[in-house]
This record gives sequence, C-alpha cells and structure tokens, in this order.
Amino acid sequence: MKKYLAVLCSWALPLVASAQHNDSLTIKKIADEVLTHSTAYENLRVLTKQIGGRLAGSPQMVKAEQWGVAALKAAGADTVYLQECMVPHWVRGEREEARIISKRRDFIPPLNILALGNSVGTGADGVTAPVIEVASFDDLEAKKDQIKGKIVFYNYHFNPTFVKTFHAYGDAVKYRGQGASRAAKYGAVAVIVRSMSHGQNNFPHTGSLHYDSALPQIPAVAIGLEDADMLSQRLKDDATANIFLKTNCQMLQDTIGHNVVAELRGSDRANEFITVGGHLDSWDICEGAQDDGAGCVQSIEVLRAYKAVGIKPSRTIRIVLFANEENGARGGSKYAELAKERNEKHIMALESDAGGYTPRGIASTMDADKRAKILTWRSLLEPYGIYDLTEDGGGTDVGPIHRALGVPMAELIPDSQRYFDVHHAANDVFEGVNKRELELGAVGMAGFIYLVDKYF
Amino acid sequence: MKKYLAVLCSWALPLVASAQHNDSLTIKKIADEVLTHSTAYENLRVLTKQIGGRLAGSPQMVKAEQWGVAALKAAGADTVYLQECMVPHWVRGEREEARIISKRRDFIPPLNILALGNSVGTGADGVTAPVIEVASFDDLEAKKDQIKGKIVFYNYHFNPTFVKTFHAYGDAVKYRGQGASRAAKYGAVAVIVRSMSHGQNNFPHTGSLHYDSALPQIPAVAIGLEDADMLSQRLKDDATANIFLKTNCQMLQDTIGHNVVAELRGSDRANEFITVGGHLDSWDICEGAQDDGAGCVQSIEVLRAYKAVGIKPSRTIRIVLFANEENGARGGSKYAELAKERNEKHIMALESDAGGYTPRGIASTMDADKRAKILTWRSLLEPYGIYDLTEDGGGTDVGPIHRALGVPMAELIPDSQRYFDVHHAANDVFEGVNKRELELGAVGMAGFIYLVDKYF
Repeated sequence: MKKYLAVLCSWALPLVASAQHNDSLTIKKIADEVLTHSTAYENLRVLTKQIGGRLAGSPQMVKAEQWGVAALKAAGADTVYLQECMVPHWVRGEREEARIISKRRDFIPPLNILALGNSVGTGADGVTAPVIEVASFDDLEAKKDQIKGKIVFYNYHFNPTFVKTFHAYGDAVKYRGQGASRAAKYGAVAVIVRSMSHGQNNFPHTGSLHYDSALPQIPAVAIGLEDADMLSQRLKDDATANIFLKTNCQMLQDTIGHNVVAELRGSDRANEFITVGGHLDSWDICEGAQDDGAGCVQSIEVLRAYKAVGIKPSRTIRIVLFANEENGARGGSKYAELAKERNEKHIMALESDAGGYTPRGIASTMDADKRAKILTWRSLLEPYGIYDLTEDGGGTDVGPIHRALGVPMAELIPDSQRYFDVHHAANDVFEGVNKRELELGAVGMAGFIYLVDKYF
Repeated sequence: MKKYLAVLCSWALPLVASAQHNDSLTIKKIADEVLTHSTAYENLRVLTKQIGGRLAGSPQMVKAEQWGVAALKAAGADTVYLQECMVPHWVRGEREEARIISKRRDFIPPLNILALGNSVGTGADGVTAPVIEVASFDDLEAKKDQIKGKIVFYNYHFNPTFVKTFHAYGDAVKYRGQGASRAAKYGAVAVIVRSMSHGQNNFPHTGSLHYDSALPQIPAVAIGLEDADMLSQRLKDDATANIFLKTNCQMLQDTIGHNVVAELRGSDRANEFITVGGHLDSWDICEGAQDDGAGCVQSIEVLRAYKAVGIKPSRTIRIVLFANEENGARGGSKYAELAKERNEKHIMALESDAGGYTPRGIASTMDADKRAKILTWRSLLEPYGIYDLTEDGGGTDVGPIHRALGVPMAELIPDSQRYFDVHHAANDVFEGVNKRELELGAVGMAGFIYLVDKYF
C-alpha cells in the first residue's frame, strides 16, 4: 500500500505542482488587474457620498438599488435583475434627545444617544425617570426588585482582550438585542445601552434590537462611550439624578425592497450557481462605507476583474447585493426561498460583511471533505494576505441558503481591529476605507471563487 | 536511528507541548495587560501632539530625548541613560515654492513640493529653467544630451501590484536617493521627484537623498502625486513651460544628539543584552506618528508590560530610542560602535520601524539554526496576528550591530497597505494610528522577545 502510494505520489506530484503553479499565475493576474484598474473605490465613493445612509424602506434604499443595477451593468454582467422582497420599514424620526436632570442644577451637556433600530419611540412628551445602572444581565436579575418605573442603563464594557474583535461583539451584543425586553419584564420604562465599541470617541453605535412578543415594548437607545462613563460617574455622585429621554422612531408597515442580482453566465455548467455578495442597506445615520458598502463594491469587483482578465467560470457567478441585513435579514431569506422554489443547484455562497479592511482569512462552513480541499489553497491565497482558512463562519445573508439547501457558505475575514470603532456609527464614512485594503479583499474573494469554481 | 528518534520523541513531546502551553499562557498574560492597560497610545499622543516633528539637530529633538527619558522611567526601567552621538543638522528654512511659468499666462496653482532631506537649497533667487520629464534612469540615459541647464522631473510611478508595499518603495526610492546626482552628471540644475506613494491625495513625501561627492550638488524636491500628473500633462501640452523653484534648505555643521537607552536588568545573565527599539527622530514636516513614534512607544510598552506582568528576563533587555535614522543612521551606528568597544555580548536586536499597523510577521536575519527555532514559535504568535516568521529582514538601526558583531537582527512587519499613504508626509499624524493596532504590535514584540530570552 505504501509502495503504491509512493508510486502514485511520484506520478501525481508534478501535476499537482503544475496545477498550483497555473492557479498561482491566474490569481496573480486577477490581483494585478484589481490593484491597477479596480473601480471598487470609486464605486464606493458614489454609493457613500452621493447616496449615503440607506436603511430598508428609505428613499436612499431605492437610489442604492438603482446604483447597484448600473454598477453591475458597467462591470460587465451578462444580466442584472431585481428580486422583490418585503422589508421592514423603521424610521428614526426627527431629533433625539437625552438629558440628565439633576437637583444640583449644574450644567450637564446633553447625552449623545441614538435610538436602537426597530425600537419604539418615547412619544412626544418623552420619558423622565430615575436611572438604575446594571453591569450585566446577572446584575439586572439581582436588582430586579428595583427596576420598576426606571430607565435601565446597561453599562457592559466591550472586552478589549479578544484579539478578534467580533468575539467581543458576540460577547456584548445581547445587551443591545435583548436588553429592552429583559428590563421590561421587571417594569423598566426605557433602556440605555453602552455602545459596542472600543473606539476613542463618543459616537453612539446603533443596531437592531428584538422585542420579546410576550412583553411590553419599551424605548431603547445606545449611548457613546464617553457619555456612558460620565453617566456612570454621575450616578455614583448623585443618586437622585433622572434622565429625560425623547425618541421619535417607529416601525411602519413593511414595504418593498429588492435584492440586486447580476450574473456572469457559466461556460459549461451555467445551471450551477456560485453566489458572491454584500448587503446594500446600511444604518440611516452613517454612510455605511465599511458596513457594508465595502462588501458590495468588492463583490462587483469580482465580476469586473473576471471579465477584464478573461476568466470564463464553469458555473454561473451570481453577484448579489442583499436588500436588508441590518434590521431584518429579509434579503438573504428571500434569496434562499427563491433558490429552493426553483430547485437551483448552488455550489457555494460567499459574503463580505466585516469591513473593507486588509484581508486575513476566509471562514467557512461545509462538510469536512470540502473544507479539507479549501485548506490546500492556503499557499495560493497567502500572498494576498489570506492565511487563515481554518475558521468556521458564514454570515447573515448566506446563512439562509446554507440552512435551506445545505449550500457551503463562506465569508471574507478582514483585519478586525478598526471595525468596531465605526460599526453602526456616524463615523462609518468613505474616508475610513483604504483603497488598497478594499481591493485586496476583492482579490481574495475573486481568487477563492476562482478555485471554488475549478475544484468544487 | 529511527527507533532511537521515535523513543526520544515519545518521551520529549509531552515536555515540548507543556512548555508551549506555558509560553502560550505567558504571552496571553502579556497581551491582556497590553490590550487593557497599555500606555503606548497615550505616550504617542504626547510625543506627536506636544513635541511633533523632531529631525536630528532640531529643538524638538532635544524635547523628544527628554520625553523618552521620562517615559522610560515611568515604564519602570531599572536605569535610563543617554548615548551621545554626532548627528547631521539639516534645516529646511522658510517657505518653499514651485511654480509653472507658461507663456500662455493662464492661472496655474503653485506646485505642492517639499525639499528632499539633505538637499542643498536654490539660493535666494531660486532657479528658473525648462523641465524635462524622464520615466526612469534608462530614460534619463537616453535623453542625456537634452539635460543640460534643465530641471529633471523623475515621474516614476509607485508600482501598485506589489502587495507588500515596501517592495514598491524599494523599487522606486532610488530616484529620490540618487536622482539628483545622476541628473547633475549631465548638467541638470535641479530635480523634482514624484513622491513614493499610492496615496489618494497631493501630499509631497520627503526623505533623504545622497549626493555623489564627485558631482555638483543640485537642489532636489519631492512633488505630490496630483501635481506630478498635472505637471506631466502640462509638459505634453506646453513644451516651453519653465519651472521656478525656490528652496531655502541647507546642511549645517553636525551637532550633538543622543540615543535614549533604558535597561530592564537580567536576572541571571545580566551581561547579555537583547535590544528592542525604534527611532526617535522624524521628518520636520509631520508628527512622525507611524514613522517612528509608533516603534518608540511600542518598545517602551514591552518594558512596561514585562514589569506589570512580573516577567523577569534572564538577559538584560535594552530599550533603545535611536537618535537619527531619517537622514544619517548615526544612532544605530553609535550603538553598534559602543557595543563593540565594550565587548558586549548581544543575543538579538529587534526594531519596529514600519508603522504601528496591525502586525503580520517578524522578519529576521540570523544563522539557519536560530531561524529554525524561531519558526517553531508560529503557533504562539499567530493568535496576535503574527503568522509570517519566514521573511528575511532587519533594519537601519539594528543593521550596524548585526554587521559589526554578527548579532541576530529582526524587525516587526505590520500590515503595509496604509504606510506609504503617510510616509514622510504631513499627514503622518497621531490620528492615523489605531490604538489596538499599535498595541498588538507591542504584544508581538514582547512575546517574541520573551521567547528569544528563553530559548536563544
């Protein structure tokens, strides 16, 4: 057996080496094209500066869809079309306010807050109530008898010791997602949540919450880190301080949005699909440059680069700009639903939704044989910064098709150190994106998909 | 032999695994300390915002040395002292000017230029001359008969296809370093050099030149990328355009500067030294935050973290803030000279001088046995972003001791995508440095040096 293997190897190795060499040359061609002629950065400039924040249901959503169609056509797609899907329609309304009201009557600047997405508003009169700070859900439970009639202030700190900052996010985001309902259970009238960030500034970071349908819906806001620290100190010094909170947000009836889909038709297996995408929506209060304008323009760039370099994939490559990730995940769900309905054969779904920073890896979820294959590509992708192919991962938009049809899913993993400085905050702007970092992410995606098409 | 090895391995493996486990715990302790309590970012704020640009010989150099002594004492050094060394004293002088002079008399905005470090000035009347653009030294040679009396414009483009941007720098920097003398050889009266950058802006990037002592010294300036493109276009449309250039820089007599040196005394081999450093000087026209304030504060942080965590190295750790890297490399030379004179035993010299960006690797130069040892540390450093230990490298400040005494040398390799956007330009400011990226670099350095001390 060993001898047989040795013979096999001595025969097969030069072939493997030569295939790797050819793949390496092709990926280098893609990289040179992207690093020299990419339109990703200019596309991002238009999306962020001319359209800006584009929450589902907003006029900017419609503009962004039009932009997506035009950008995909310009990139050379064989066909571009829209997939209609119902999306939530949450609106922030006018000016939001939060002030500490103290018997001391000293001057206190207003608090920098943002209503959480999907939150109810306070009504025109606002809410005025005493504040109780809790460090965690355990702390909330310990203080459950003191919650009634109060505003609960979740002051859970983003943990700086997670090197991969998404782990800190996973650790802290439950206070944003569940904090309102868990406080409402004990009679709270509103919640203020410390922002999920270790930024060095006072931007509040919004993001969606989920109400437990069995409990009253109470208003919820995020607060900037400096104000969170100030408020915490104030409550120590001045236990009778109240907060006046006013938000004007509301959830309207669902409305119509669209996934924007483009295809580069496969040369010989056109009825098999490989999906590459990002999400087109963003929070209303920022340009959504890293989240997720970057993922959209990188996905478009994959198509443009293939056309420019003359790569003719065997399968049909579908670029999808998903309709609604931030406060509903309806885009990814609709895409999966239609794929199932039409009995489509999908080979892989890859998304980029962790920022346009310099890439480090591609995380994935699939069976062990396929994963083992991916691991052999490391030397091909490492020259472009992608050295880690071992992590498990997927994402909000490719998750539904993975769950519905068992499609292997993957996500680009960029360096995460800067991401939560700007995530869901007003400072997520075009200027924070570096042109070459953005492009290298697109190179990694294009190289990976080239290998998937060839070897899966 | 094989059997013997197998026996050895089965006995030794658990020990190796357990040592790796302990090392992993120690490095995690260092990382938690740095990511939670680092003073690197605040130190950098003071150095860049309160002192600013600090070229050798400037008043800011003296302030920076005082800052270094205080910061190293605050970090807990056993001893801090200065090593005197002579440094070049080049001064830029007042307002620099460059204008296109055209017979067309249309309005042309002034060109954004900066004299190159060590350049002579134009004199009070400036230089007015026709311009000849060359694409490369080959092109200069081809046009050598047309050079006399002209200003040579080196318009060599920074190559975007090098993923590691230092390779693009290595490719292009000869036009800055040698361009003046090579043009002077054919009678040029001044040179304008396209900046070594793929930034999306018009900042000129300075840096030092070297005059060939056999040739006349002519003035040399860097020009911003947008103005370089504009000038190139102008010369195509309007071949008779002249340029008026005025710079007021001059090289004065050498003056006195200092390496700032701190020691954390070794527990049992105190007479053996491990050096960790960055350079304290920077160009005059920027804050020198990435180049190389970052390397200085990271080096200081290594010492602070060891003290905080209670690591007592066997060897003496020397933190060195080198006096003069930008336009003379005298600090590193003096350090090597003194080490040789005193017959010191040095184990390793590590520098950080490629920016405070998120780390990717440590490059090194040493004999094969030692390099092989370093390669076994990959799994210990990869959790902090350092996955590449295979590259050859060193640096301007550790190079002299490597050459003089054969000391193994190494350098931190941060992600390089953003570095040449700001390198030697006015936009190299504190705001461009990300706190966590800076800290992760310090973690990588501290972890690496911990392993060097233990296993070298």
